[in-house]
Amino acid sequence: MSANLDKFNKTDLKQRAAALSESATAPFPASRKIYVAGDRPDIRVPMREISQARTQAAFGAEENPPVTVYDTSGPYTDPQARIDLNQGLTALRQTWIEQRGDSEVLPGPSSDFGLARLQDPATEALRFEHIRAPRRARSGYNVSQMHYARQGVITPEMEFIAIRENQKLDRLAQSDLLQRHAGHSFGANLPERYTSEFVRQEVAAGRAIIPANINHPELEPMIIGRNFKVKINANIGNSAVTSGIAEEVEKMVWATRWGADTVMDLSTGKHIHETREWIIRNSPVPIGTVPIYQALEKVDGRAEELSWEIFRDTLIEQAEQGVDYFTIHAGVRLPYIPLTSGRVTGIVSRGGSILAKWCLAHHRENFLYTHFEDICEIMKAYDVSFSLGDGLRPGSIADANDRAQFAELETLGELTRIAWNHDVQVMIEGPGHVPMQLIKQNMDKELSDCMEAPFYTLGPLTTDIAPGYDHITSAIGAAQIGWYGTAMLCYVTPKEHLGLPDKEDVRQGIITYRIAAHAADLAKGLPSAQIRDNALSKARFEFRWQDQFNLSLDPEKAREFHDQTLPKDAHKVAHFCSMCGPHFCSMKITQDVRDYAAKHGIENTDDALDAGLEEKAREFREKGHNIYQKS
Amino acid sequence: MSANLDKFNKTDLKQRAAALSESATAPFPASRKIYVAGDRPDIRVPMREISQARTQAAFGAEENPPVTVYDTSGPYTDPQARIDLNQGLTALRQTWIEQRGDSEVLPGPSSDFGLARLQDPATEALRFEHIRAPRRARSGYNVSQMHYARQGVITPEMEFIAIRENQKLDRLAQSDLLQRHAGHSFGANLPERYTSEFVRQEVAAGRAIIPANINHPELEPMIIGRNFKVKINANIGNSAVTSGIAEEVEKMVWATRWGADTVMDLSTGKHIHETREWIIRNSPVPIGTVPIYQALEKVDGRAEELSWEIFRDTLIEQAEQGVDYFTIHAGVRLPYIPLTSGRVTGIVSRGGSILAKWCLAHHRENFLYTHFEDICEIMKAYDVSFSLGDGLRPGSIADANDRAQFAELETLGELTRIAWNHDVQVMIEGPGHVPMQLIKQNMDKELSDCMEAPFYTLGPLTTDIAPGYDHITSAIGAAQIGWYGTAMLCYVTPKEHLGLPDKEDVRQGIITYRIAAHAADLAKGLPSAQIRDNALSKARFEFRWQDQFNLSLDPEKAREFHDQTLPKDAHKVAHFCSMCGPHFCSMKITQDVRDYAAKHGIENTDDALDAGLEEKAREFREKGHNIYQKS
Repeated sequence: MSANLDKFNKTDLKQRAAALSESATAPFPASRKIYVAGDRPDIRVPMREISQARTQAAFGAEENPPVTVYDTSGPYTDPQARIDLNQGLTALRQTWIEQRGDSEVLPGPSSDFGLARLQDPATEALRFEHIRAPRRARSGYNVSQMHYARQGVITPEMEFIAIRENQKLDRLAQSDLLQRHAGHSFGANLPERYTSEFVRQEVAAGRAIIPANINHPELEPMIIGRNFKVKINANIGNSAVTSGIAEEVEKMVWATRWGADTVMDLSTGKHIHETREWIIRNSPVPIGTVPIYQALEKVDGRAEELSWEIFRDTLIEQAEQGVDYFTIHAGVRLPYIPLTSGRVTGIVSRGGSILAKWCLAHHRENFLYTHFEDICEIMKAYDVSFSLGDGLRPGSIADANDRAQFAELETLGELTRIAWNHDVQVMIEGPGHVPMQLIKQNMDKELSDCMEAPFYTLGPLTTDIAPGYDHITSAIGAAQIGWYGTAMLCYVTPKEHLGLPDKEDVRQGIITYRIAAHAADLAKGLPSAQIRDNALSKARFEFRWQDQFNLSLDPEKAREFHDQTLPKDAHKVAHFCSMCGPHFCSMKITQDVRDYAAKHGIENTDDALDAGLEEKAREFREKGHNIYQKS
Repeated sequence: MSANLDKFNKTDLKQRAAALSESATAPFPASRKIYVAGDRPDIRVPMREISQARTQAAFGAEENPPVTVYDTSGPYTDPQARIDLNQGLTALRQTWIEQRGDSEVLPGPSSDFGLARLQDPATEALRFEHIRAPRRARSGYNVSQMHYARQGVITPEMEFIAIRENQKLDRLAQSDLLQRHAGHSFGANLPERYTSEFVRQEVAAGRAIIPANINHPELEPMIIGRNFKVKINANIGNSAVTSGIAEEVEKMVWATRWGADTVMDLSTGKHIHETREWIIRNSPVPIGTVPIYQALEKVDGRAEELSWEIFRDTLIEQAEQGVDYFTIHAGVRLPYIPLTSGRVTGIVSRGGSILAKWCLAHHRENFLYTHFEDICEIMKAYDVSFSLGDGLRPGSIADANDRAQFAELETLGELTRIAWNHDVQVMIEGPGHVPMQLIKQNMDKELSDCMEAPFYTLGPLTTDIAPGYDHITSAIGAAQIGWYGTAMLCYVTPKEHLGLPDKEDVRQGIITYRIAAHAADLAKGLPSAQIRDNALSKARFEFRWQDQFNLSLDPEKAREFHDQTLPKDAHKVAHFCSMCGPHFCSMKITQDVRDYAAKHGIENTDDALDAGLEEKAREFREKGHNIYQKS
């Protein structure tokens, strides 16, 4: 890493900012960024509108309405926006936060580490230039969205989210694109239309969280809960082995471009404080971290030297930078650790094993568990949400759903109650490696033990035998657990278990997880979900190739694959596809069917057999059992 | 296509045969081909045995047994085998077929087309040299495996299959690798150990099929049924647009290398007869076709000119070449066709739309339906199995589970009964595009309407919005429907809807589908399934990197990804992985846990809390609710 960082300096980053890779910022084809206004003028909810061509004359020449899709990419894909990584994004929530009057600007960082770093000339060259003084709840106040929700207050964030989740569905009234199947929601309660009040109720009940640290005013509010669109998280972060700051910022932008709803910064290197600042200041999505990783850096990797004091300082340091949620492995209790000793793969969570090592070294209970209420006090002063870590998650099919895993889950439920007593937002992390027949038990147990707090799972991977393809082994599990009720899916890239993901791996992982999340939305019956499927399939049927590409999750890839077989531009409007060639085309024949049905006055109803083909139908009935006699 | 074929001649193929791409034939790393003998010496069931290194001293230095895996790659991965594409594979079933005494060798092809092609000097250069005279059931005989099974006869094919499905499981007794979760099989009946008699019973009942044309004596027998390992099919085939014979043979070998249990040749070009001969003569797996594609070629693509006579001649032509199963779209009945007129994507099956066009043009019932008994007569004379085509399958989420689809499925059940009256083997094709909540209905309806005949599905794709990633959208559905009871999954490649798959796409599609099939096997509780997961995870935990790669579905890809981050050879034996770096490693810590548990006399049982940590546990209990008091 030092090799990378030695080369790195602010000038480099400034240059790169001016020209943040075009592949990460180019607008999507046929798309424009729109902003849907809320009740107050400073609520402007970004969405992406994909325009469509008119249906070709042969198929009826009808107009096809633009399709509005959920957009996580922030201002980066808005050609009107002025992007300057050195300035960071606009603090769009600043006024909302200030107007609440329950927080105050501190003179400077209140963590020892944050202060030391700010004053350290050695990191000056790496430092983000425009660091705001941190903001914290005034004494006696609680600035969490859950707290407001429980007071009956609808925040601008909640209104923003209601508009965002609706995806302009109400404005598409009467379109054929609204056709959809009934979902099977396993008890989720998906409204036909989201309201701010619904959002408030969900947050108040703890069924959903709005990760939104008051020190991250740049973020576009989003919600994680099973009664909303299923979300996905992408992990980025340098490790001790590779990668630098500029690369991580680029990866964050890249991740939100493809659809990451939140990003976890899992950096473990020497300059994680500075890296994090750059990422948060430029991130339109909530940022999560695992603070124990940094705490461990501070004791030079010696887990046994960790202490509550060091950890506490790390929490404050990160909270004042604006981290929106913390993974806290407070459920890795000392008595559970030996339960993992007979496992095939022991403890595979990095955080879990750090704490296990600490517990064993001291033969004492996990200090995150014993100090949990102290942690809550910090969380509510900045509105950092808990992501209660599953440090004992199974790392192999063999270890799935074992006593260690479930003992920890039960403790996470106990901790959830405590956090909720503080009006602190909570989500629960879940596995891991789980064969399909054991997935539902994870969801059911989480809902029951953790009182419907949002579940946030890693996959789960449904087999261990395909390293190099674990985005797929896990998407199979992720789609199912998303369907059963998981609120956010943590992506897995093809490099899982093997190496660090590069940009292409990140893209693969995100698209794969958007597929899983969307498949779950469809299955649950989310009202807006099927619109995009309907539009894309209609475009496909009508040979509107460009629309098919434009409506897809990854237009570039779709176009690239098409071009490999049929590179000519003419083929983009051809009435045939590469599978059958120009001579014969099933789609073309279907049009004949429609013409036939129209000519014979047949409706697409269950009784078409009798209604439309009376004569033939009678003939068939008369023939009866003799129909198979040789003719 | 002609450009490719003009270049093509026998000399080319001979040269390529001598050096059939190394990537398609190199043995897998640390693997050797073994042959497990049956009761008769000419039953030699191929398997792949993957050897493992000893556990490193730090983890106990134990021996790790070799892992035996199901092997579809035929002699191509056996360094002892002499491969000559111009000769074709050894006819290993020849004696079995002859000994039954119920078939006879014909003087030559009995189809007009087969005869004409054999005598056509224009195709001489393309022709496989060693065409055997075709074999057919003697008059009054039925040579289907179902017929034998129903007579109570256990064929060598059945014995071969019982051994193959067992995967030497019985020889692993006492190994920790046998640890497994209980499955949830949705009514499937998976025995602890397969016997020839079990195989016979399943075939007799129609719950499983053994696709094995007597004119394809080269194949290594395999079975398709829900009480066996879930199988996968890969499609190959040139189209009117691209690809030549040698390329297709290479693709077939390539597909079996990665794990295709059967291969469908979907060629539509001018020389499909010759291409097919080359493929079958060199294929160790059953070959399926859709004969209507070739019939259409014979009438120059004019569907309305198709006739029973042309189709019948095509069936005989292909049956005498050795095609093992035919997709027959006999369920696309005239009255069902208008039911598709209100669909978003109409009729997307190529076969379905050919027949729809014919039906509409003539305003007559589908001739495959009216001639179904005639088709059965041909099938049983060669032992070709039916794959009853789903010509009305949904091509979009919107069209899933509609009346057209299910009307056809009901008819497929009716046709199954007729085929079974002839002792002809049947499997049923299934969709398509289906959102998750509607998948199970497909399986349940198939089992009930088609009396448990094996289901063979294409995916299903669980969303339409990800062209370029449809191997993934469909693997999510395939894993689920495989779990519910589908016997064979037809793969989908990343190029689905966009273009023709190249070799890399074929590999991606196959590995993806092996993941789906294996996830289904695990979930159903197939006794041998978890062994490989256990072995690979143990290797992973013990930092046996090479073993981890070697045990994976795609060792090359796993190694390649690992090398991208940690290229040095030393890292292959390193006690750390690329995610955490050398400084900190969760796997290492787990070993500390084990040492700790051993030292404190703790077993991995549910009561470890009390048993092993009595003192601490008492302390926790005493603290009771005060545990959260600030310390």
